[in-house]
Amino acid sequence: MTGTDKKQTSAVSPTPPILEAAVRAKKASRELARLSHENRVKALTAMADAIDAAAKDILKANALDIASMDKQEPTPEHDVLKKRLALNESKILDITRSIREVSKLPDPIGQTLMSRELDSDLILHKVACPIGLVAVIFESRPDALPQILSLCLKSGNGALLKGGREAEQTNNQIFACIQKSLVQNDINPEVFALTHKREDIETLLGAKGTVDLIIPRGSNALVSHIMSNTQIPVLGHAAGICHIYVDKEADLHKALRICIDAKTSYPAACNAVETILVHENAAARFLPALLQSFENMRVESRCDEKCKQLVRSIDLGMVKDATADDFGTEFSNLIVAIKIVDSIDAAIQHINDNSSNHTDAIVTEDNSAAERFFELVDSAGVYLNASTRFADGFRYGFGAEVGISNGKLHPRGPVGLDGLTTYKYRLIGKGHIVADYSGANARQFTHKDL
Amino acid sequence: MTGTDKKQTSAVSPTPPILEAAVRAKKASRELARLSHENRVKALTAMADAIDAAAKDILKANALDIASMDKQEPTPEHDVLKKRLALNESKILDITRSIREVSKLPDPIGQTLMSRELDSDLILHKVACPIGLVAVIFESRPDALPQILSLCLKSGNGALLKGGREAEQTNNQIFACIQKSLVQNDINPEVFALTHKREDIETLLGAKGTVDLIIPRGSNALVSHIMSNTQIPVLGHAAGICHIYVDKEADLHKALRICIDAKTSYPAACNAVETILVHENAAARFLPALLQSFENMRVESRCDEKCKQLVRSIDLGMVKDATADDFGTEFSNLIVAIKIVDSIDAAIQHINDNSSNHTDAIVTEDNSAAERFFELVDSAGVYLNASTRFADGFRYGFGAEVGISNGKLHPRGPVGLDGLTTYKYRLIGKGHIVADYSGANARQFTHKDL
Repeated sequence: MTGTDKKQTSAVSPTPPILEAAVRAKKASRELARLSHENRVKALTAMADAIDAAAKDILKANALDIASMDKQEPTPEHDVLKKRLALNESKILDITRSIREVSKLPDPIGQTLMSRELDSDLILHKVACPIGLVAVIFESRPDALPQILSLCLKSGNGALLKGGREAEQTNNQIFACIQKSLVQNDINPEVFALTHKREDIETLLGAKGTVDLIIPRGSNALVSHIMSNTQIPVLGHAAGICHIYVDKEADLHKALRICIDAKTSYPAACNAVETILVHENAAARFLPALLQSFENMRVESRCDEKCKQLVRSIDLGMVKDATADDFGTEFSNLIVAIKIVDSIDAAIQHINDNSSNHTDAIVTEDNSAAERFFELVDSAGVYLNASTRFADGFRYGFGAEVGISNGKLHPRGPVGLDGLTTYKYRLIGKGHIVADYSGANARQFTHKDL
Repeated sequence: MTGTDKKQTSAVSPTPPILEAAVRAKKASRELARLSHENRVKALTAMADAIDAAAKDILKANALDIASMDKQEPTPEHDVLKKRLALNESKILDITRSIREVSKLPDPIGQTLMSRELDSDLILHKVACPIGLVAVIFESRPDALPQILSLCLKSGNGALLKGGREAEQTNNQIFACIQKSLVQNDINPEVFALTHKREDIETLLGAKGTVDLIIPRGSNALVSHIMSNTQIPVLGHAAGICHIYVDKEADLHKALRICIDAKTSYPAACNAVETILVHENAAARFLPALLQSFENMRVESRCDEKCKQLVRSIDLGMVKDATADDFGTEFSNLIVAIKIVDSIDAAIQHINDNSSNHTDAIVTEDNSAAERFFELVDSAGVYLNASTRFADGFRYGFGAEVGISNGKLHPRGPVGLDGLTTYKYRLIGKGHIVADYSGANARQFTHKDL
């Protein structure tokens, strides 16, 4: 971000309202960043209380949103959206419980990450601070809104939210509770803004210098579009192509439980498994049981040739031929690709070539195989004897998550409070100048860690 | 980065040689990442020894590069390039000393950044690992090459370097020493590659999925071009617009030393000051001395109206009228913009509106003013009573730097070894599945930090 970028942003004329909201949110975020942890925690508690108190109004608004959806032509996608949109009393309890958990976590900002004496009286500190202004684009699920805003409030960041139109009334009702809790705690409510206009997305993508980070939470197409059309850093992942490799030294009982959980417990999740690789020495013992279990659970198994050979004597209607494209596809459904490999290195190679670097697991009792897999698989999550479905901010103990990052620059994996902070270097001198450290009688740096 | 991106990269046909080199370097980087710290240190020592031993050949190659430059039409830029290009024995000693310093630093990879028990026998570790393959585009200065490659070797990253044509013979000679030291230490030399072809830049910008990070070190125009034309993360900064604010409680002796050092000790550096802001209560005491010193050192002072009024009785030929554009310009030369402000908040606002978020300093003896400046100025470096010129990897004790980042996502500021690492989450279970943690008899996470 440069001075020039900022000028370009403010030169847009007439300024779209969302950009004016962004400038005000950015300004307010600087004051939020200075607020004590105690005050941020108070506001979070007020946020949870306000949502609890307004539960009936929120459910009423949600019923209106559902009713408008019911007026539309039903499609399979429509049903999925409706499921995600629907709230009930227990879901509202989950929302407020999650806000209260976030409020209890340690303060992520102001922490000193490094302190170093450069010379006498010249001290360098690396101190965690908020990122600034975050723009989040999300679809249907109204519980994403309080989750994201509680993380932003705790980490001192401003936020612009673009919600899905189908959840507009529910979102507005929840957002009103949050605004109320900010005002009660003398926090400028302009620090958060909510919009449901699709055209605001394009405006935000061009707001480099004002918006510091974009977090898209939606379809792969939406995420890819955003990543290709902005110069602002984007946190997220377009595809979640997770693998499980069942090693020749695997405990096959564990392998079966893990494969079934990873495929069937929530097939639409990004951390569901899409490809299972099986070592050839384990295949004859493992695959018939796996394929039979998948058959019983209505999971379609797209198998490579070797794998099909192995099970040709069993009557399995859900076993199909895998195509090359099936390896590297996010099915988001009860479909899995299965392949036999002749070594752990072949499995690692296949994963590094086809994975989306989200989460990949090995099932083995051989420590050296596990260590090799940990070191060579190039993904944000690398698991031993556990389901890929654990890749989640709540399960990692982050309280909640704003998203899961496949990027390799900070942050990576499920992103909670830490991922919403950056740092600045603070240098404290007593009039120190650089010229003293060069030339014939140059002072030497001490470079002593404190 | 997704599986899809990888496929697009490998579908280019016929594959340009630089892309083949990139694929080989990426592969070799995975093995480099597994090398013990001891072996990486040995290779670094061999690298320094090889450059020491080849000093005469390097200087001979450098003389040839200089001679080809001399055949060209001389221009002011030409002279700057020539100065940066020229090596001598003392500069070669600096190069090898810097490599030996990098070799002595603690191992940046493999460190456990977090360990957490999620449940009994389900342990999550966050472990530092290399980023992968870094592409560095640099101009003239041949000492950048060993500096960058020593940092990459130490941090386990592969690297593709695109050097400036004017330094081709010098770069080739130094690169040969480095390749030799890798081979001697059984490291695949394909992990580093060097090119001088300009057209290779465009190829690398499209190599998402293979190249993990691009580091441009050159003109603002080059950096801006790269940032606008790639989907790969870019580490760097287009402009270095640094500020010094002289507060009403400043020690004016310190302020004068700092302003002169920050403007004159290396005006072409990105950490040189471009704008000086002076509180109106300090202006009458401070500005005449500052402008007189700048006059003596042939620094052109572009002053706002208030500032000009103050010094109108003094005969200063180097004082000019500032235009609005001067505030927010990187002069990279003996020119400075000067403005009087009526409060610290006006100074902070001016800085946040015009700074490139590189490094900004306050000179004051008032701790609460310093604290306000530290918290509200949104830059990678925020200094108290010290020259902006300290923003440098060597001065921070990082041994060397690959660049300075204005970005807010990791890394930020001078980037040494830590900035060349990311992390992966390692999860170790005993067959744990997610389904056990939901429903009526859900297991509870322990979320205990270890």
